[in-house]
Amino acid sequence: MPKKGSSGSRPEKGGSASVLRAIRSSAEDIYSKIVARKKPSMKFPIRSLANVKYLPQRGFFEMTGQKKERTLTVNTVKTFAQTLRMIALSKELVEGDDIATKREAYYVSKNWEEARFSEQPESDTVMDDVEAYFGVNREQLGFIPEEKGGDIAGRLVVIDHDRDTGKELRIDCTKFGSGAYSIPITVEHLEFETGADFILVIETAGMFQRLVKHNYWKKANCILVSMGGVPTRACRRFIRRLADFKKIPVYVFVDGDPYGITNIYRTLKVGSGNAAHLNEFFCVPQARFLGITPKDIVDYKLPTHPLKDVDVKRAKDAIKNDPFIRHYQDWIDALEQLIDMGVRAEQQALAKHGLNYVIDAYLPQKLRHPERFLP
Amino acid sequence: MPKKGSSGSRPEKGGSASVLRAIRSSAEDIYSKIVARKKPSMKFPIRSLANVKYLPQRGFFEMTGQKKERTLTVNTVKTFAQTLRMIALSKELVEGDDIATKREAYYVSKNWEEARFSEQPESDTVMDDVEAYFGVNREQLGFIPEEKGGDIAGRLVVIDHDRDTGKELRIDCTKFGSGAYSIPITVEHLEFETGADFILVIETAGMFQRLVKHNYWKKANCILVSMGGVPTRACRRFIRRLADFKKIPVYVFVDGDPYGITNIYRTLKVGSGNAAHLNEFFCVPQARFLGITPKDIVDYKLPTHPLKDVDVKRAKDAIKNDPFIRHYQDWIDALEQLIDMGVRAEQQALAKHGLNYVIDAYLPQKLRHPERFLP
Repeated sequence: MPKKGSSGSRPEKGGSASVLRAIRSSAEDIYSKIVARKKPSMKFPIRSLANVKYLPQRGFFEMTGQKKERTLTVNTVKTFAQTLRMIALSKELVEGDDIATKREAYYVSKNWEEARFSEQPESDTVMDDVEAYFGVNREQLGFIPEEKGGDIAGRLVVIDHDRDTGKELRIDCTKFGSGAYSIPITVEHLEFETGADFILVIETAGMFQRLVKHNYWKKANCILVSMGGVPTRACRRFIRRLADFKKIPVYVFVDGDPYGITNIYRTLKVGSGNAAHLNEFFCVPQARFLGITPKDIVDYKLPTHPLKDVDVKRAKDAIKNDPFIRHYQDWIDALEQLIDMGVRAEQQALAKHGLNYVIDAYLPQKLRHPERFLP
Repeated sequence: MPKKGSSGSRPEKGGSASVLRAIRSSAEDIYSKIVARKKPSMKFPIRSLANVKYLPQRGFFEMTGQKKERTLTVNTVKTFAQTLRMIALSKELVEGDDIATKREAYYVSKNWEEARFSEQPESDTVMDDVEAYFGVNREQLGFIPEEKGGDIAGRLVVIDHDRDTGKELRIDCTKFGSGAYSIPITVEHLEFETGADFILVIETAGMFQRLVKHNYWKKANCILVSMGGVPTRACRRFIRRLADFKKIPVYVFVDGDPYGITNIYRTLKVGSGNAAHLNEFFCVPQARFLGITPKDIVDYKLPTHPLKDVDVKRAKDAIKNDPFIRHYQDWIDALEQLIDMGVRAEQQALAKHGLNYVIDAYLPQKLRHPERFLP
């Protein structure tokens, strides 16, 4: 397997050159075996939760190193050919500074004659294998997700370039009024300038719009990020690169319920279980949980909803099986407190005390003690 | 019922003043009846498909005028009080230039003692009644949706203002590189400058990103809008206001399937059935359907998927019951052609002919004949 082209914590200068080198070297290896009449083979990391561990000093779900081998035989010839064509497509994309979604890649294969895919899940699997094989993220191979998501407002200048002229574009996120900067699907090429004290990552579009409308980022000297639910890959990668390069803390403000904690926050911070081969890039290990905590529900006398069975199951599952939650007694305690209280509270519940209580009281009070944030 | 504060086709200058006048006048009416020991009452339009008609010259689903009356009695006292408190909250929001989501409004009611709502659907219904009562859209009452959506790139300058300084902010959508301008939840206050020839509205984030990446808006001198599926209220309203003010055509590029046609496109163009009281504001009557048409599937030899039962049912339902589809023989024919062929095609299917075939061939060919676009 080629060496990693880049790590999540280093700038991506020359990233595409190293990807191209890796592609060429693996192609030469396979080609030389074939002309020598030997059986070429490729080794892929096994992508599943069973092949995952959590080390807090590394900060994300990591693969433990189990691999599967694909050798060119009569039975594997079609998959082998498809894998090579997918790698060739990636080379074409990277060389041409182009992109393809998973779905587009599937349709491109319709011209690969015998190597064409008949269903998209087949091509997705091969793409995931190629990604894991090279140990880089899909975006660096020129493949992009279908969905985008994540809006930005506040003390940040994003530096991008015009594709045609190469001219630098300075995108000032303090100048969007009630609107916002929408994060592109790929973010590896972006650079940043900021004097912000922290990044505030928000679950709902409604809460984000409130903080934007009242220019909260001016008062708190921060960058506001709207995730709109579970953060997309691009959104996680954007926050990670920004926080790494500028060495600023990341505080997360989501609903006080098992979904907000174990799905939204956990995915942002350490990645997801079934995509362990790329958590290294798509997680934000420096994230800390500002609220809504179970303690906030009590301290701020928030209106609540009863926990549903599915919420309780989600919380109990996490305590029992999630390597991240299990690592922190604070999280086990918090989830057990939620289960005991039998309730959940949304971030909008603060509106009970007045629509702008969140700006005037809650956030300033919490931000006085970041050391008390949950891990 | 007060007169309409504004129409979808006129600028919103002084919109908030007329909303405040309408609120005060209805409050005075109710107050004077109460002090005269008469029973006050309010009349609300009935919000349902059965109370809807489609007139192409008007361009959207309209209510036919049936109303329900709510008179203050022992049985209605709680709902009546809640309605008045909701109107009072709206007045507070408009006066303070603030906003509240449906969910926040529900939580605010937790301090209304006996008039508090016990579930959010109750407060949503009262809010919808208030909106229909005043004949303005919810955003003008200070109430905003939870979700946002819609990204913009291309030949457009959006003019907004800094809330603190009042300073004009000119947001140039040609200067975002690979990123985009994210449409805010409320758009009534925005103004526009553009020399674009048309607005191209796109279903998927992936296709939008391809066109942005290749600066397609430069080549075609247009504005690109990403809906990301069924367009949100804010996205529809943004396109409508922009197209009205600048008198530029709107072309829609979605998947060639019953969902893309009867849900995404139909909702954008004429609004939705169950929100007929506000379609006047949240529709784009000038929208025309660029593709993917059933004819494109044949002409461009696109890879297809078989129609599922739910697709066939959706198409047949639309031909039978949808007043918009039924109005246009072209649409009935197109849906029947889809049903006959038994297949659907995604916009990404064009990638079969090469990833940038959509930019180099498909869009230029289609745009040579906008008169052939479906209505």
